[in-house]
Amino acid sequence: MGRKDHGARSVSSTACLLIPRPLMSAPSDKPWSGVFDGATDPRVEKFTESVSFDHRLYEQDIRGSSAHARMLASVGVLSDEECRQIVEGLEQIGSQIAAGTFVFRQELEDIHMNIERALIEQIGDVGRKLHTSRSRNDQVSTDFRLWIRDAIDRLDGLLVQLQRAFVSRCERDQGVVLPGYTHLQRAQPVLANHYWLAYCEKLERDRTRLDDCRTRVNQLPLGTAALAGTSIPIDRQMVADELGFEELVANSLDSSSDRDFAIEFCFVLALIAEHLSTWAEEWILWSTSEFNFLRLPQAYCTGSSIMPQKINPDVLELTRGKTARVVGNLQSLLVLVKGLPLAYNRDLQEDKERVFDSAETVEACVGLAAAVVAGAELNRKAIAERLEQGYLDATTLMEYLIGLGIPQRTAHGIIGSLVAVAMKRGVPLAELSQAEFQAAHEALDEKVFGVLGVERAIEAFSSYGSTAPTEVAKQVAMWRERLQIQVSS
Amino acid sequence: MGRKDHGARSVSSTACLLIPRPLMSAPSDKPWSGVFDGATDPRVEKFTESVSFDHRLYEQDIRGSSAHARMLASVGVLSDEECRQIVEGLEQIGSQIAAGTFVFRQELEDIHMNIERALIEQIGDVGRKLHTSRSRNDQVSTDFRLWIRDAIDRLDGLLVQLQRAFVSRCERDQGVVLPGYTHLQRAQPVLANHYWLAYCEKLERDRTRLDDCRTRVNQLPLGTAALAGTSIPIDRQMVADELGFEELVANSLDSSSDRDFAIEFCFVLALIAEHLSTWAEEWILWSTSEFNFLRLPQAYCTGSSIMPQKINPDVLELTRGKTARVVGNLQSLLVLVKGLPLAYNRDLQEDKERVFDSAETVEACVGLAAAVVAGAELNRKAIAERLEQGYLDATTLMEYLIGLGIPQRTAHGIIGSLVAVAMKRGVPLAELSQAEFQAAHEALDEKVFGVLGVERAIEAFSSYGSTAPTEVAKQVAMWRERLQIQVSS
Amino acid sequence: MGRKDHGARSVSSTACLLIPRPLMSAPSDKPWSGVFDGATDPRVEKFTESVSFDHRLYEQDIRGSSAHARMLASVGVLSDEECRQIVEGLEQIGSQIAAGTFVFRQELEDIHMNIERALIEQIGDVGRKLHTSRSRNDQVSTDFRLWIRDAIDRLDGLLVQLQRAFVSRCERDQGVVLPGYTHLQRAQPVLANHYWLAYCEKLERDRTRLDDCRTRVNQLPLGTAALAGTSIPIDRQMVADELGFEELVANSLDSSSDRDFAIEFCFVLALIAEHLSTWAEEWILWSTSEFNFLRLPQAYCTGSSIMPQKINPDVLELTRGKTARVVGNLQSLLVLVKGLPLAYNRDLQEDKERVFDSAETVEACVGLAAAVVAGAELNRKAIAERLEQGYLDATTLMEYLIGLGIPQRTAHGIIGSLVAVAMKRGVPLAELSQAEFQAAHEALDEKVFGVLGVERAIEAFSSYGSTAPTEVAKQVAMWRERLQIQVSS
Amino acid sequence: MGRKDHGARSVSSTACLLIPRPLMSAPSDKPWSGVFDGATDPRVEKFTESVSFDHRLYEQDIRGSSAHARMLASVGVLSDEECRQIVEGLEQIGSQIAAGTFVFRQELEDIHMNIERALIEQIGDVGRKLHTSRSRNDQVSTDFRLWIRDAIDRLDGLLVQLQRAFVSRCERDQGVVLPGYTHLQRAQPVLANHYWLAYCEKLERDRTRLDDCRTRVNQLPLGTAALAGTSIPIDRQMVADELGFEELVANSLDSSSDRDFAIEFCFVLALIAEHLSTWAEEWILWSTSEFNFLRLPQAYCTGSSIMPQKINPDVLELTRGKTARVVGNLQSLLVLVKGLPLAYNRDLQEDKERVFDSAETVEACVGLAAAVVAGAELNRKAIAERLEQGYLDATTLMEYLIGLGIPQRTAHGIIGSLVAVAMKRGVPLAELSQAEFQAAHEALDEKVFGVLGVERAIEAFSSYGSTAPTEVAKQVAMWRERLQIQVSS
Repeated sequence: MGRKDHGARSVSSTACLLIPRPLMSAPSDKPWSGVFDGATDPRVEKFTESVSFDHRLYEQDIRGSSAHARMLASVGVLSDEECRQIVEGLEQIGSQIAAGTFVFRQELEDIHMNIERALIEQIGDVGRKLHTSRSRNDQVSTDFRLWIRDAIDRLDGLLVQLQRAFVSRCERDQGVVLPGYTHLQRAQPVLANHYWLAYCEKLERDRTRLDDCRTRVNQLPLGTAALAGTSIPIDRQMVADELGFEELVANSLDSSSDRDFAIEFCFVLALIAEHLSTWAEEWILWSTSEFNFLRLPQAYCTGSSIMPQKINPDVLELTRGKTARVVGNLQSLLVLVKGLPLAYNRDLQEDKERVFDSAETVEACVGLAAAVVAGAELNRKAIAERLEQGYLDATTLMEYLIGLGIPQRTAHGIIGSLVAVAMKRGVPLAELSQAEFQAAHEALDEKVFGVLGVERAIEAFSSYGSTAPTEVAKQVAMWRERLQIQVSS
Repeated sequence: MGRKDHGARSVSSTACLLIPRPLMSAPSDKPWSGVFDGATDPRVEKFTESVSFDHRLYEQDIRGSSAHARMLASVGVLSDEECRQIVEGLEQIGSQIAAGTFVFRQELEDIHMNIERALIEQIGDVGRKLHTSRSRNDQVSTDFRLWIRDAIDRLDGLLVQLQRAFVSRCERDQGVVLPGYTHLQRAQPVLANHYWLAYCEKLERDRTRLDDCRTRVNQLPLGTAALAGTSIPIDRQMVADELGFEELVANSLDSSSDRDFAIEFCFVLALIAEHLSTWAEEWILWSTSEFNFLRLPQAYCTGSSIMPQKINPDVLELTRGKTARVVGNLQSLLVLVKGLPLAYNRDLQEDKERVFDSAETVEACVGLAAAVVAGAELNRKAIAERLEQGYLDATTLMEYLIGLGIPQRTAHGIIGSLVAVAMKRGVPLAELSQAEFQAAHEALDEKVFGVLGVERAIEAFSSYGSTAPTEVAKQVAMWRERLQIQVSS
Repeated sequence: MGRKDHGARSVSSTACLLIPRPLMSAPSDKPWSGVFDGATDPRVEKFTESVSFDHRLYEQDIRGSSAHARMLASVGVLSDEECRQIVEGLEQIGSQIAAGTFVFRQELEDIHMNIERALIEQIGDVGRKLHTSRSRNDQVSTDFRLWIRDAIDRLDGLLVQLQRAFVSRCERDQGVVLPGYTHLQRAQPVLANHYWLAYCEKLERDRTRLDDCRTRVNQLPLGTAALAGTSIPIDRQMVADELGFEELVANSLDSSSDRDFAIEFCFVLALIAEHLSTWAEEWILWSTSEFNFLRLPQAYCTGSSIMPQKINPDVLELTRGKTARVVGNLQSLLVLVKGLPLAYNRDLQEDKERVFDSAETVEACVGLAAAVVAGAELNRKAIAERLEQGYLDATTLMEYLIGLGIPQRTAHGIIGSLVAVAMKRGVPLAELSQAEFQAAHEALDEKVFGVLGVERAIEAFSSYGSTAPTEVAKQVAMWRERLQIQVSS
Repeated sequence: MGRKDHGARSVSSTACLLIPRPLMSAPSDKPWSGVFDGATDPRVEKFTESVSFDHRLYEQDIRGSSAHARMLASVGVLSDEECRQIVEGLEQIGSQIAAGTFVFRQELEDIHMNIERALIEQIGDVGRKLHTSRSRNDQVSTDFRLWIRDAIDRLDGLLVQLQRAFVSRCERDQGVVLPGYTHLQRAQPVLANHYWLAYCEKLERDRTRLDDCRTRVNQLPLGTAALAGTSIPIDRQMVADELGFEELVANSLDSSSDRDFAIEFCFVLALIAEHLSTWAEEWILWSTSEFNFLRLPQAYCTGSSIMPQKINPDVLELTRGKTARVVGNLQSLLVLVKGLPLAYNRDLQEDKERVFDSAETVEACVGLAAAVVAGAELNRKAIAERLEQGYLDATTLMEYLIGLGIPQRTAHGIIGSLVAVAMKRGVPLAELSQAEFQAAHEALDEKVFGVLGVERAIEAFSSYGSTAPTEVAKQVAMWRERLQIQVSS
């Protein structure tokens, strides 16, 4: 697909050496000092700065500015030599930032002005030409879209790893039957592998949402300038081609005010987090002393500072808990843009921290989930011992009755009464007497015992999408092929 | 595309005659009474019922049940005669509900059991066979997906109407120049038509999101039964074909727990509401005595109970305000599914009211927005009188200097100082003297007056996506074609 | 305290006969028609109306208008006879609404204009004087505050009932020991009664929050008119006294824009819902086949349409699920008021549905919770059988070691290792040999067996607030006194 | 009141030197290693650590641990010498952290274990005794409550400063009349000082909410240990007295699971942010070229990177925008605790970042708001020039008619028609002819001109809470006294 070519790597952990200044800034330090006649309150610099978090965009900023410079050269705004100086200067700055030796200055507001100022200091007056025909509005939007595109690609890879972790369990857990639940009450028997594939389906939908989102992210705003475009004869398509954008944003007012791409990304992340919260909740339950279905790898548990015996599923709990911040981040973005008129308003600066936080949180959760899924062990013995509890075979028995011509509603009532009898005696259906079955309905003769019990119930399923062993086996095979997983021979 | 064939129509206003019962229900009234030995507290019936809101699904339920019955006949579970009785019975019930003569019973919980019970009362024992191989879990999910699919198709049509309302203004508002804003401060001149198309772009993204969502909605869950599938040899593909579903849900555990489709729909609705809130805010501002850009049609305004002179933009305010409920509804759904283990949990019943509320709210807002957009008038005179305020030509002047070889940063500072001089004198740039321009930079000779003023500034734009008159004209033409709008000759 | 005197009763279920009109309204139907020259689009009437939900305020509106009329008479704006006609007219209308015979008209927008119009129709021109010196802005705010005050008082009573249900269990559940959990892993033994009182504490905080909120709700806005007050010489204190408000709102601009009272109420409701969600989750878990601690009363459970054996904890699930709407409603209100300038904006009309929904939802949940708490039974035998699982005595053993002079951190490590040994052998600590204890630390001689086992562990607790039987008994006694609960003799 | 004695100071900017470890941790590094047989995955250490943000609690942790140690000494668990060593050791560590020389270790998870480990390294085995009879659960809760109490006290002081800034304007802005708005349409005239006091009222309610919240925060959980209390004979009241807590938490299960105090604090912060968003929106509007009511101090504005003329109200925009994160943070907490069973779950660790973020955000906003309020200037001339626009005197005229015996509804219609006439002619009411007034109603004779015009309208107000000059003057005097503001003579 080629989409991984765009240098996806996380820079969130880049050391950010930030030097705040305690003094009132001389206005001449700003990229916008001309019209001002006074200095900025240093508390305002701290309040309005974004470099403490948008330094994450440095790599994208340099990529974008280099493409912009080459385009300016191609349309004659820069000479080739000027372009060379700018691109080389930017590359040097990128290396300094990557190496952690670049000193960020809070009074320069953001990553973009920090880099531009450093460029001017390095290459002189030529550096002052880079910002021709662009505004920070379209520059920020471009960098941010590149960052999100990279994050989508990284996350997509992690989701595939998590799917692989689930599918890879299927060989090992072949044949294990678990209770399936509705209302957290035992309902019908389900193959362990059917559980694993349910999560693969959810994650696959997440992947298609990421992909749809990526298409809308991957549109170039650069060149729409502040809000109205520019009178410089730029070539936006050339920049788009170089940076791998699929389309040009077509209306500058729209572009200057648009954060749909960021909000949609946060929504897709929120649904991924929700899916993980379901999985985490389930496995927290399964790891209790009471369910006892699952043994988590100790490397993913922690203990208590006071209770010596505790082995706690902290990774699962935090995965569930972190859903909260991801959902809250989405809400922040939806509150943020509510009622903002066109075009750019400074409120929009608040978008980035929320997106960074959601993306980094979900990446970490998905990555660890794959390890936990791979390392957990089902307690086959404990599961099997209690599998006949909960009348998991009652529905199959009802369908057996239906097969004998009894209408479903009638059959439902008959089996319900039989379960009530069995419950009162504290036994599974298979331990009722033939007389009791016959009393319930004459069609329930001795053949009824051939369909009772969880093992027989699970064998009876047949519909597409069901937990029928043959259907699940087909699905496992399909997933193995899709995810290119080899089976051990 | 054919997708409109599936009978999209709103049933939200169907009269719902709901008869609550003050008495303790006999358990035999329930579809699940067999195993119970006592009656339900009537407060519980009120607390757990959903028919007061899910009666909206009646048409989808009947469509789905008819398809299910035909499939059961095709695989031999029903005779053709039984199938005919069921389908005709369902149609009769549908007619009664549409006519408002059907009496809903709260103790039957939901629309599904109300219809099934009525069917049994009408056609007798055969009606008891309808629920074979399905559960309410997959029945509800099927009906709900059909409803959302219909709602998407209706909403898509309304969005097109709103786009048409914007594009249809372009003939009338040809040549009107408005201030463009950033930070709500006058920034650069912008064509009115550029504004209108900005909203078309936002709505177009909404339409692509609706379309992507529709694909994920349009998958058939029916046949996955409660959570594990069924032992009855059903033909899910036949049902999917009849109901127009593109795919079958492939994992019953996933299906039984899945509300992604509803949440994603609510998210797409929330972004539409956000876009409308931006438009509403802008037009509320433009309708103030202070901006005075716009005259709203009085048929979309209301007055005050105490202040006789008031003509208030209530429709716009409520459109902005209703964003709040749509955003809150999305949050409700995200809270709802957080930490729920597989598979179905009763919490999920809470999904429908939120989806109905968001869908009906956004439909109403989009519909009215089209009327307001069509009926409003720009106050051309008032706009023009103050257009030279705010130095809207400063950036074009800077780009003129750049064209003379001055680096952008340097040019920015020079023009900034000139604006400061003009501000102090309270005049536009065009009223500075040649000497003042020369003092700022020697390259600013008398030719500078040829680029000053808002009219010249707007003519200077050239980039793709900008407010350049030729570019906007091309975009208008493109939109007219896309939306099939005729121009008056 | 007397606060219950203000006629708290729910009117949410009042039948609302709403007659929408399909025709374009003559402008003269409106309370604000003078300045308008055209009619309102009927879609706008539907979009802007609120009577379909604010009819709930009818009783408060009549109370408030009657007090307003009496005040107008006392300051000479109305004659005594006019006042008598108005008050009697209002009372008649109130009776009609209570009886369900009043016909609401959508085109009259809200409950306030419906009542005023009916008054004018009944008593003629005198009715046109009622709205003197007030606006709907302050009228709505007054009615809404009265409604919320009533709702707070009702809810406070329900919370006390729920506390009583918990405390009333304490006699019955005396001496039952349950596992206490952290991370959902068995941690230390806890008395059942300690659990019940934990919920009483949470609900008690809710009650103090409700009370604090009530103080801020209970301030009279009436008389601040639209946004600036009035030139009529009104007596606001007289109205406040009659309606039981503790203070007058002191700034009309603040009052006209203020919805703090509604938002704070929704927040307090959200925390109550959260507390119920914790209880519901816990009892859902305890009702599973796996935990098996609790038997819910069947009258508060429901079954499955397909699985005959299911007895599901639907009331608990819906209580948990409804947290979602209550949380979403709060968010809606916070989104609603964000960025609204002073003073009244029509957006604020969106507040009421959210408040009504939250209040009615939480009232229903709290009411049912009391019934469920009262009716559930602990499965003492099943609980006791597995009580020695999970090393609930490990911390007490560590504290025993600390008592022998071993530093806590060292003791923690020693007991941790002993638990590891016991886990490997699959036995409780009490079944380790003396040699094993001695190997871990020489101080662990035969006396160690005197502190092992859950029964001894629970007896060892002593600190205030702990699960020590004597401490819990004191707390139970304190709660019985506070809630005036008699113990059966 | 003495409450400021508890050392309120912000430590959010403490440098946090955090050394992550790339290697697998030896389990012996943990406070809970005994029962574990393997090491922790270093990704888990990164995922579960909190020291990168909870280092903010260091001062509270040391305060709390010192009080705990003294109590342990007083009940004989520590010797006086041991207590002295611990307290001195803790003080040294506190100094190191304050000085920025303390090295935090990620693998030690949190601030609490970092400090305890450092203590043990400094003073040896005695340090291992500090954690006696406490768990991190109650330790964290104690520290966090202390931090929030400090934050409440700081914030309360800042809110008073902001109120002072508003009230201090009143001398300067005496007599300035502004348009008051509803629906953002000009409504009635309002004194500037009435505006300023409206904000004081809102902030005063915030202060009472903070105070109510403080009471519930200020309860000591320490001593409830993990979830069940302790067998060590501790003296919780002594600790509470030393740390200034007003009460003891009475139920350990409640305490271990309780985050009400944090959520309520976040809610109170959210309402403060909402109030600031209203103010910010209003002042952004007033600073536009169109309204032109207000000149912001340039030290609180910033410019544009491309448009040389721009002076943007960034501080106001970010204040409005940051409401979004504060509202989102509240939502995160409400999502976090939903459906968590008793008692402690690791999810709760996610609470702190959201609280820190909201508290620090709102503190910064309130602090800057005071400076902006103090520094802005009203453009008296521009305001006055357009004050007769918008028929601000229409309601007073209506009330004049009511004074002549015309019922309000009738008077409303009459004045509405007069306004329609004036609108059509584009003149204020005062410029209608006497004949026109008489045509509308005969009572409108030449005396009508004595009540027309904004100046006369404002003088006419009289009710308590209105914008009547005498009423506003009384309110200003009351606020000056309450806030102890001197008037310049």
